[in-house]
This record gives sequence, C-alpha cells and structure tokens, in this order.
Amino acid sequence: MDAVNHQFRLAARPVGLPKASDWDLTEEPVPEPGDGQVLVKVKYLSLDPAMRGWMNEGRSYIAPVKIGDVMRALGAGEVLASRHPSLSPGDHVTGLLGVQEYALVDGNAVMKVDPQLAPLPVHCGTLGMAGMTAYFGLLDIGRPSEGETVVVSGAAGAVGGIVGQIAKLKGARAVGIAGGAEKCRHVVEQLGFDAAVDYKNQDVATGLREHCPDGIDVYFDNVGGEILDAALARLARHARVVICGAISQYNATGGMRGPANYMSLLVNHASMTGFVVSDYGDRFAAGASEMGVWLSQGKLKTFEDVAVGFETFPDTLLRLFRGENTGKLVLQVQD
Amino acid sequence: MDAVNHQFRLAARPVGLPKASDWDLTEEPVPEPGDGQVLVKVKYLSLDPAMRGWMNEGRSYIAPVKIGDVMRALGAGEVLASRHPSLSPGDHVTGLLGVQEYALVDGNAVMKVDPQLAPLPVHCGTLGMAGMTAYFGLLDIGRPSEGETVVVSGAAGAVGGIVGQIAKLKGARAVGIAGGAEKCRHVVEQLGFDAAVDYKNQDVATGLREHCPDGIDVYFDNVGGEILDAALARLARHARVVICGAISQYNATGGMRGPANYMSLLVNHASMTGFVVSDYGDRFAAGASEMGVWLSQGKLKTFEDVAVGFETFPDTLLRLFRGENTGKLVLQVQD
Repeated sequence: MDAVNHQFRLAARPVGLPKASDWDLTEEPVPEPGDGQVLVKVKYLSLDPAMRGWMNEGRSYIAPVKIGDVMRALGAGEVLASRHPSLSPGDHVTGLLGVQEYALVDGNAVMKVDPQLAPLPVHCGTLGMAGMTAYFGLLDIGRPSEGETVVVSGAAGAVGGIVGQIAKLKGARAVGIAGGAEKCRHVVEQLGFDAAVDYKNQDVATGLREHCPDGIDVYFDNVGGEILDAALARLARHARVVICGAISQYNATGGMRGPANYMSLLVNHASMTGFVVSDYGDRFAAGASEMGVWLSQGKLKTFEDVAVGFETFPDTLLRLFRGENTGKLVLQVQD
Repeated sequence: MDAVNHQFRLAARPVGLPKASDWDLTEEPVPEPGDGQVLVKVKYLSLDPAMRGWMNEGRSYIAPVKIGDVMRALGAGEVLASRHPSLSPGDHVTGLLGVQEYALVDGNAVMKVDPQLAPLPVHCGTLGMAGMTAYFGLLDIGRPSEGETVVVSGAAGAVGGIVGQIAKLKGARAVGIAGGAEKCRHVVEQLGFDAAVDYKNQDVATGLREHCPDGIDVYFDNVGGEILDAALARLARHARVVICGAISQYNATGGMRGPANYMSLLVNHASMTGFVVSDYGDRFAAGASEMGVWLSQGKLKTFEDVAVGFETFPDTLLRLFRGENTGKLVLQVQD
C-alpha cells in the first residue's frame, strides 16, 4: 500500500488551551497488519473534553499521552486489511484509533458496528462513549425516580443532551444548563427538556430557583466551577450529584477550583459521586442495545456536529472548550 | 424559687471567631414549668463545632439562633421540677438545654439518661451527639469492611476519636490526622489507632502516603480545607468520603474553600456524602445501646475534656477552633 498516513502527535504538554505548537503533524507510510491486527481507514474521530486531560502529565484513570505519540482519540472507520479472524475488509469498527488517517490496531480492541443501524458519527456519539457516559452515569449513579428533577450542565453537548432525554424517558423532569439562547432553544424544543437555563445570559442560581422549585434531586455535572456551586446550593434532600466532567476547569492555569458549596451535601444528606465510562465496560453491550432500541423507536434523538477535514483537528478540538458545538462534536477525517 | 438564671445570649452574628461582644450575659428569674414542661438544672454543656454554624444567618439544616436568643447548646442536667408525666425531680436528662444555668424545656424534647451507666459528661459525648455522629456517619455512610483503611481528621476530637475506634472494632485499619505530637500519641496509644499524621508538624500528603500504601477506602472528614484535599488525592477506588464537618472553615471570613481535588472522585469512582446526626434521630436508641455495650465491655474508650465555670463559656468555646481540646469538650456549669 503506497498511501501516506498523516498523524497529529503531541509535541508539548499544553498550558491552558492547546495551541498550534503543542502539535506535530507528521506522516509515515501506511503500515501492514501483523498477526491479530487490523488496518483501519479512519473516517470519523470523536472529539471529547476528556482528551484535554489525557494531554496532562500525572496519574489519572488512564495513562497520559506521551510526548511524540499520536494523540489518543476514539473514532470510527472501515477495515482495509485484517489478520484477525473475526474482522474482514469492509467491516466498520469503533475504538481508540488515534488522531490519524489510518490506524493499525489489535482486532480485539475495536468493536464491530453496523452502519445500517446508525451512521458512523452516531456510533461515535450516542451509541459510543458519550451515550454510554450519559446512560450509566445517570442510571447507575443519578438513579432518577419518576417525578424527580434532574438538572444537567452542558445540556446541549453530546453527553448532556442524552442525560436529559433519558431522564424524561424515566419519568423525571429535565432541566438543562447551556450557553446561549440558541442552545437553550435546542435543549427544550429539539431534545424535549422541560426548561433550560442560559448561563451566558442569566444568573444560574436564579434560573435554578425558578425551574427547580422543589430543589434538584439529581445533578449531572459536566462543567464544574461556578455552575457546580450554583447547583449544589439548590440540592433537595438526598440529592445525588454525578461528577462526569469539569470542562470549565480543564484549561485553567491557576489550578482547579473546588466546589465551595460542598457543605450543601451535609445539610441535605446528599452525595457526590464520580465515574469514568470505562468503569462500565462490561455493561456497554447492554447499554448500547437499549439505547439502540430507543433510537430506533424515535424516543431518543441524536445530534452530531460534524466538522470536516483532518487538518482542522487542532482548531476543531478547541470548539469544545469554547462551547461552540451543539450535540456530539465529530471530525470527518476522510470519506 | 428565688435563684437567678444566667444565660449567654447571641448579641451579634460573629465575623470570623466569635468575640466577647458577640455575647450578652443576662440574668432572669428561674422560671416555673408549665404543663408538659420540666425545669432542668444544667450541669454540663456539650461544646460542639456545629455551634459556630448555628450563629450564622441563612438556611441550613436547622434554623439559626436569633439575635437576643439564648445560645443553643446540648447539655445534661437534673430535673428540679416537672409537669411531665414521665419525668420526676432527680431524674437526669440530656437535650437542647441552651447556654444557661436552668432550662425550661418540653419534657418530650429531652431524654432521660442513667448516670450510673456513665457520668453525665459521657452522655454529652460518646453516648450523646458526638458518639451518634461517629457511629452513624461511619457505619451508615463510610461502611468500612474488614481490612480496609479508614482515615479520620480531627482524630483526637470527640467524633474523630470514636470513628477510629469503631473502625478498629469492625476490623478496618484506622489512621488519624491530628494536630501536634501529644494528640497523635493519644490517638495511637490511648485510642488504639494504627497510625497518626501530625498535620502541624508534617506534610499530610506524605503522611497519608506512608500510612495508607493502598489508598484510603473511607475518609471521615471533620475539618475541610487542605486536609480534605490531601485525603482526596489519596483515595482508593470506590472510596467513600464522609462529610461530617469542616471546622477549619467555620470561621473563615473569605468564604468557604472548596475541595480542589474533588475530581479524584471521578478518577476513583468514589463518593462524597454528607449528613447531620439528626438525620438518624429514629435510630439513636439502637446506636446508643450498642455504644453503651462497647463502653461497658471496655471495647470503646471515652475521653472528656471538662472545662469548669459557666462564665468561661465564650473562651472555652474557642478552644474547639484552636484545636485545644482532646476528646469531648464539655463545660461544667454547676455541680
């Protein structure tokens, strides 16, 4: 195979928002699969807030990307060549493909997906990590009951939009927090939330007081910072706070800001529990199956924000941190 | 009855540590009980960190003490006169007696205690709120298993000292955090903890690394601030953080400090849950009974730090916030 594989490699550990010089765009020959491996043509990359954490040094739930390594990313693509018994050329797969055009991966480390069931970008989002994150975080940790009030931040994002929809499916009220009138309209009109609070144009505490008159029973947090504090101040008794992410803090250079209102946990006998989606790896199949049913029945809506062009990766990634995406941010690498 | 009742009333809402001018020492005639009431001669007052919170304005788990009201406090005393069918003069009771020499209270709002089972100061501590706080916070929220590592801050204090002892009774390892070599010796030698970290003379993170090589399974927090952050950084997977108090923050004038390391909950699939002891009101009898058995069997040791003299109340209260007490701080009001 004579094609060239372009790759974005981590050149430096970013301070604050990743900048152009934190990346190296490299090229190398497209490799041949060894025993058990497959060569995947990368079609879509999932761009996720968690990627910012993977670029930092230090112990976390997953090892940091090493300087000089191809940037870690989930993605979807097509098998071009296979030396794995259960995968054949033409199969579509998702997995940790990396920010590159061609990925050589262990056949056991990717999952075969059906592009007839849903387009590949949906397999990168609602049927992928974002969907599993929403599904397990809300149902296993948040555990909303009928009639309870579920509040989710980043409500117009990939995870938040699904959290609110699942909350509704379970008979709870869903209130979203999102930035800007357009996103708030999307959350209410297209995703079916009961209400949305626009953190860019209104006081979040006031908005939560208005839309959660009996307090917040489940708060699913994707953002951290001031919004987490506002939600903590509004907890109902026995509330469950789900810590899924803290996108407002990932690029902070002055250190993380802790939730000053955490004593609301004491006053309300409430809990705050964190997770990463890989904690539920052994239940993904069941989760994706139920999500697939909801999708096919029209009970769950999925929105992908598809950016085009491999070379735009560094800029497109920043759209996450600027709050510019609505729905799952996906980069189309090649057709 | 001609005796005079002296009372400490809240004169102003303190900013930072309560100062002399935040109190009014008043006197009034000792009242007569009305129907259903008892008159109690207050013998001991329980001095608790939570009292600082009751002095602040604002919604919490209990209404603030109003300016001009007798300061709220738990205590133990002797019934002098009763118009309640199940209480008689000579009975000993505990309850919210207030910072005064004589308390007129609803007979249903106090609990009869047996001074033969344990001296009154113990009924103010290990068999009172402090003991119930340790018992339910550790066993209901922390849920330590055999072989797990339990860390408690304020380990030489009323609650912390009991938490570590109950942890040991349940087969867990107990590591205390306390201020100063003397307290640390007390924690290990007299209370039987496995180890103690002296936050005044050593780096807490280093101490926790040394004494919790497999991480912290249960962290029982009484102090908040930097120590909470150090413990969060050392959590084991599926750790339970019990938020019982935040004494380091109660007198902060720059606002509460939130735990910057709260994302350790995410990395470790850990939880942080708060409570106040009154949440367990309907189980106090069972808790006190089990604690009483442990005490009588010598499995649980109890230490009271008894200050003498009603008029010393304002200064004695401050000993809590200066970390000067070892064991339960109790004020002997009168004999």
